[in-house]
Amino acid sequence: MSLFRPDVDRIQGYVPGEQPQDDGWIKLNTNENPYPPSPKVAAAVAEACSGRLNVYPDPLASRFRKATAELFNVDQDWILPGNGSDEILTILNRAFVDPGELITFPYPSYTLYETLADIQGAAHERLLLEPDWSWDIDRVRPQIERSKLVLVPNPNSPSGNCWADETIHELVPPNGVFVLDEAYGDFRAEPHQGEILHSDDGRRMVITRTLSKSYSLAGIRFGFAVAHPDLISGMRKVKDSYNCNTLSLAAATAAVEDQDWMLGNRRRIIATRDRLTKSLCELNFDTVDSEANFIWATHSEISHQKIYEKLKARKVLVRFMKFPESLNDSELTGLRITVGTDDETDGFLEILREIME
Amino acid sequence: MSLFRPDVDRIQGYVPGEQPQDDGWIKLNTNENPYPPSPKVAAAVAEACSGRLNVYPDPLASRFRKATAELFNVDQDWILPGNGSDEILTILNRAFVDPGELITFPYPSYTLYETLADIQGAAHERLLLEPDWSWDIDRVRPQIERSKLVLVPNPNSPSGNCWADETIHELVPPNGVFVLDEAYGDFRAEPHQGEILHSDDGRRMVITRTLSKSYSLAGIRFGFAVAHPDLISGMRKVKDSYNCNTLSLAAATAAVEDQDWMLGNRRRIIATRDRLTKSLCELNFDTVDSEANFIWATHSEISHQKIYEKLKARKVLVRFMKFPESLNDSELTGLRITVGTDDETDGFLEILREIME
Repeated sequence: MSLFRPDVDRIQGYVPGEQPQDDGWIKLNTNENPYPPSPKVAAAVAEACSGRLNVYPDPLASRFRKATAELFNVDQDWILPGNGSDEILTILNRAFVDPGELITFPYPSYTLYETLADIQGAAHERLLLEPDWSWDIDRVRPQIERSKLVLVPNPNSPSGNCWADETIHELVPPNGVFVLDEAYGDFRAEPHQGEILHSDDGRRMVITRTLSKSYSLAGIRFGFAVAHPDLISGMRKVKDSYNCNTLSLAAATAAVEDQDWMLGNRRRIIATRDRLTKSLCELNFDTVDSEANFIWATHSEISHQKIYEKLKARKVLVRFMKFPESLNDSELTGLRITVGTDDETDGFLEILREIME
Repeated sequence: MSLFRPDVDRIQGYVPGEQPQDDGWIKLNTNENPYPPSPKVAAAVAEACSGRLNVYPDPLASRFRKATAELFNVDQDWILPGNGSDEILTILNRAFVDPGELITFPYPSYTLYETLADIQGAAHERLLLEPDWSWDIDRVRPQIERSKLVLVPNPNSPSGNCWADETIHELVPPNGVFVLDEAYGDFRAEPHQGEILHSDDGRRMVITRTLSKSYSLAGIRFGFAVAHPDLISGMRKVKDSYNCNTLSLAAATAAVEDQDWMLGNRRRIIATRDRLTKSLCELNFDTVDSEANFIWATHSEISHQKIYEKLKARKVLVRFMKFPESLNDSELTGLRITVGTDDETDGFLEILREIME
């Protein structure tokens, strides 16, 4: 007899992208930012280290919440920090969804949503996207209406496209909570200040953000939620009291306080993304217009898995993705390619050209 | 209509000890170690900062697991790191307990267990301790036999006493998992290497540890589980993929690798603890023989709450605790006093003597 919950026995667990621990890779598979974080991060961490690591962190994360509240033009009680937006997503599941209640999310999209729903013992359904990554709202409406939690990444992954606010409003469940997962939100063409939260249905909306991508801080596992205090105060009850540590709080605060640095890296990545898109098209790949730091590329003739394997043999990692279900086809496959530095991009393209010959 | 789960609406959330953010306090309320962590911690964190914070942490925490496995004389796959033992306790709830199943724990004890069970939607019952903090095994056996998860801190909090392995074996549920919460395990008179896990019922046992207390690292939120790989592998499925960050991993690894530093602080704390116990007895407090870094003190004549308040007015914080249920009395109250430095202890005793006059 297993000691585990049946749900836990049944699931595989989420499989993150490969993280080789040796050197020499061009690593374009997990959407990390190729540029270092603000130098103010290391200074803030060193200061925190010279302080008192023997005492518990500030459970209110006051300085981080102050800096972030200013960015979104809200009060501090609208902000909840966590260990990456992954922890925020776990908190959302635990706060709002009882076993058997329904969680929905677009598909193809971020596959962690399914794993988290399984862990929570929740029911879950995929909201199938159209072949051009748009929504057929009438088709998904019945599912949305039955949902306790709807999770939508915007920009979406793996496609990188963004949906307009008018579409987002159509996806808010009438009897549940809507999560706008903006892990890649800083790479959008038109950044925003969370104005959507102040709309009529904003009281049932939570925006999640991470510092892993735009702030170049995947290593510190830091994310946060922005939502009305009625939602934040309940979410806070299910988190560990001291969920964020003194070092990551110091790093995150310094990064958020240095907007210029993040915006400089954002500009560089967007310029490289546009060049990479053009080059992929020249190699006969189909791409989606991306507002993120990665590009979804498909090829009508050559096996995506083969391309992935040949690149890997040359120490270039991209993400080969396989979605068993889609409206387009019985199975959707493709390559999700992170936008690296210009040098990494040139190195990748050179090897890709050789492979495609 | 609330959007939250009924369980979440019903609970208050765990209330941690006060964490004043201003200076000048003698802070003896949350069992922090008064001494700084190993200087190797700051060096390791600085090195990690100069490395690549823009990439994800090592999801396997290889170096930390190697160092810790050696301490417990097991293979690396017996070790699971987390954000404090609090996260490990959350993982244990989510891995083993379905809503409605029973979680039990001694009482008076660590009150977080009840909060975590509530969040999980689990049933929970208190295993009432005898007035002298011992177990009446025959009395609690029916509860143990119905338990899916039994959580026992050893040393216990707030009492600080330790139970022998023979008692621990009696508390292992026949159809569930037993958690030996050793947050204060390094302060025991007889430290061990987890030999109990290799006993007949060891396959249903998990030891949890934290670096917050003995390693002086409450600020980095780091703990770990030690258990048979069959248990660890299932627990791993319910955690976030990258639950520990690059900075806390570097700090934790450096701390665990510097055993001499930890053991030096342990010796100092034990010496101060013995002196503090003696002084409290001279002031007519009743104390429990502590194998932790705190002392449980009660006074038969003066209100514990009054003593706490008078100390707080003088900027001395101890933990006033109130347990509504006990075999001793309708309500048990007392003061849990952390063992500080010698200077802090002298300062506390001086003010306490004035208050008691």
